[in-house]
Amino acid sequence: MSQTATPQIKGARLLASLQALGQIGALPGGGVNRLAFSDADRLGRDWAVARMRELGLRVEVDAIGNIFGHSPGVQDVAPVMMGSHIDTVRTGGLYDGNYGVLAALEVVRTLREAGVTPQRPLTLAIFSNEEGARFQPDMMGSLVYVGGMPLHEALAARDAEGLTVAAELQRIGYQGTAPVGAPRVDSYLELHIEQGPVLERQGLQIGVVEGVQGISWTEFTMQGQSNHAGTTPMDMRHDAALVAAQVAVHARELAQRMGGRQLATVGALQLSPNLVNVIAQKAVFTVDLRNTDGAALALAEAELMAYAARAAEAEGVQLTARALARFEPVVFDAALVDLVQSQAQALGCTHMRMPSGAGHDAQMLARVCPSAMIFVPSVGGLSHNVREHTEAEDLLRGAQLLLQVVLALANRTS
Amino acid sequence: MSQTATPQIKGARLLASLQALGQIGALPGGGVNRLAFSDADRLGRDWAVARMRELGLRVEVDAIGNIFGHSPGVQDVAPVMMGSHIDTVRTGGLYDGNYGVLAALEVVRTLREAGVTPQRPLTLAIFSNEEGARFQPDMMGSLVYVGGMPLHEALAARDAEGLTVAAELQRIGYQGTAPVGAPRVDSYLELHIEQGPVLERQGLQIGVVEGVQGISWTEFTMQGQSNHAGTTPMDMRHDAALVAAQVAVHARELAQRMGGRQLATVGALQLSPNLVNVIAQKAVFTVDLRNTDGAALALAEAELMAYAARAAEAEGVQLTARALARFEPVVFDAALVDLVQSQAQALGCTHMRMPSGAGHDAQMLARVCPSAMIFVPSVGGLSHNVREHTEAEDLLRGAQLLLQVVLALANRTS
Repeated sequence: MSQTATPQIKGARLLASLQALGQIGALPGGGVNRLAFSDADRLGRDWAVARMRELGLRVEVDAIGNIFGHSPGVQDVAPVMMGSHIDTVRTGGLYDGNYGVLAALEVVRTLREAGVTPQRPLTLAIFSNEEGARFQPDMMGSLVYVGGMPLHEALAARDAEGLTVAAELQRIGYQGTAPVGAPRVDSYLELHIEQGPVLERQGLQIGVVEGVQGISWTEFTMQGQSNHAGTTPMDMRHDAALVAAQVAVHARELAQRMGGRQLATVGALQLSPNLVNVIAQKAVFTVDLRNTDGAALALAEAELMAYAARAAEAEGVQLTARALARFEPVVFDAALVDLVQSQAQALGCTHMRMPSGAGHDAQMLARVCPSAMIFVPSVGGLSHNVREHTEAEDLLRGAQLLLQVVLALANRTS
Repeated sequence: MSQTATPQIKGARLLASLQALGQIGALPGGGVNRLAFSDADRLGRDWAVARMRELGLRVEVDAIGNIFGHSPGVQDVAPVMMGSHIDTVRTGGLYDGNYGVLAALEVVRTLREAGVTPQRPLTLAIFSNEEGARFQPDMMGSLVYVGGMPLHEALAARDAEGLTVAAELQRIGYQGTAPVGAPRVDSYLELHIEQGPVLERQGLQIGVVEGVQGISWTEFTMQGQSNHAGTTPMDMRHDAALVAAQVAVHARELAQRMGGRQLATVGALQLSPNLVNVIAQKAVFTVDLRNTDGAALALAEAELMAYAARAAEAEGVQLTARALARFEPVVFDAALVDLVQSQAQALGCTHMRMPSGAGHDAQMLARVCPSAMIFVPSVGGLSHNVREHTEAEDLLRGAQLLLQVVLALANRTS
């Protein structure tokens, strides 16, 4: 590699492309709706593929609709991959996923304009249905890509209206022929907005992501007895709402007591019959537990379940629990995380090492190659929200860091 | 009054009339739906009025649709009134209200058949819209009857479809001409199912009702901040669901600590956006507090409000509270309650003095004349439920007690 100055991302162009993609599926008043495999998703894909072709990338679509843009290196070896997704939730913002894809596009464009060809090929990846807002599971495209889910299962997933992934992929013209399940990738980098408040509150520019925390979702159903709130003495009650409330309060206490990176949230709760003067017969609610430490997460699950069982028994309420989701924590490649950190330092960015609180395609790629992520701050910590925002200078800084990490990776001699 | 044996209620006839009225608005599989001023209510009223006329009662309908059947006494003085209601909730049972009306009808019939004419006239009352399930407030008919609510306000009340009480009363032919607001009643007796589990659990036959507990309904709204459950550290949360749960748990603790007749129920709770992985932005929930002691009830309200404010502040959540209903406790006439108790003793019934947990027309009548109530056991404490049930022997026993109390009242010399 020639010892020229490092190529510099053009911020205005990056912002313009984010705005342009944000027009597709735009919601009145702001934000965007490009649910996976919808008409808006098709238009977004068409737009992104057109940008790849303008750059002369070789475009490939695989059997689950993942899109790859290949840029050759000096050597014909496994590529360094950059990627993310462009599908959104129903009321999403302009940055979640899209930022990682468009910054990667800008990295390739900037290197080409500077006449820089890295030793290793670069691949730009757009993974299908990361959000899981229409078809479950989320991170579907990257999961199938790495062989974590059989293709036919993913293609058979149905949305609320009964449409399958297979039918919708065909309809929008993105069921490709490239194989899935055993990718050949040198390493994977994903740039993403934090989607949380930590960097902003700490006044830092870059998050060096060490891994993705483990997730445990449980749905509890408490079955009590419906009775008149005015005629049933306190000691004769079997109040499902009370036990639900006790578990919610306990979940918070548990997270505070365990400390560290333990999170606990009761976000959904439904009472029946849900009337002011009737003791609840049934309470259905969810507990979302997360931890970067798998053993601690398992402990939190066990403690919460034991508490819920005790509380239900004390009230004479019947408890059932159903696992909705369970992912072990993912630890990113130590050397790659160190490389991100050293490049952040070299670029003069204030930064911190942190876990990702949300799931990302990078955690799937981590199954098959060294992977890591870069976070930039989210204003107010907002995401999955039409008011999702990241400042222009942060967007530019993240993209420049991505460029430098990728360049170092693709030119490394080891 | 001649010293003959006390006339005896015919149980089979009482049961048959309960079944007959229960056919009107019957639900498939059991139970009944005779919402106030509906077609089914009209048919129920027609049936009841026909029974009154068969007995030769002088039937009168007032301006809010209350129906009265008058039976003359030896003297032309203010009548002893027995009554209740025949409207039901949407999925009601056969006994709530109907039992009091039909037992009163049976009392009149039994006295007539025995050739007994009491000194004072007897009036059988069927009050409009006691349930409040379609038009609010509940106990509307008796409230207007005693002058507690202006007639025009009650007539202007609208159901969920926008229909007024006035229009519906006219439609079903029950807007009468008898005046409301200043009734002339000697005393009022209401026989009712307990609608709670106390008598059954205590193994007792009769509840001698001393009054109706005070009711305080408050709707709390907690406004927090919606955020990602995976990316928002525990100490940066403004979780509306947590504060709602804390208040629900505290309400139970408060009732237990206060003891006595303090009741506390959180029966309705709605979270927004109500998703497993999103911290709740908003929680709207109700607290139902009841106590037979007005001062204690006010204390419970104040304590709960203070706790809710502290909990909201600690979590950085904004609290607003709205009173949905507030009734002071009603204490029934001591001499009349004593009379009920002494007649229960005379009849050899096991009994206890108790408050009513639910509201009843008797609490409105208590504003204008000595009033009291008699309770019989509810199987399983169930009411406002198609499975509402009271055993035949309990129904008969309650009606016989009503007869004896009314006879004693109507023949008293004082």
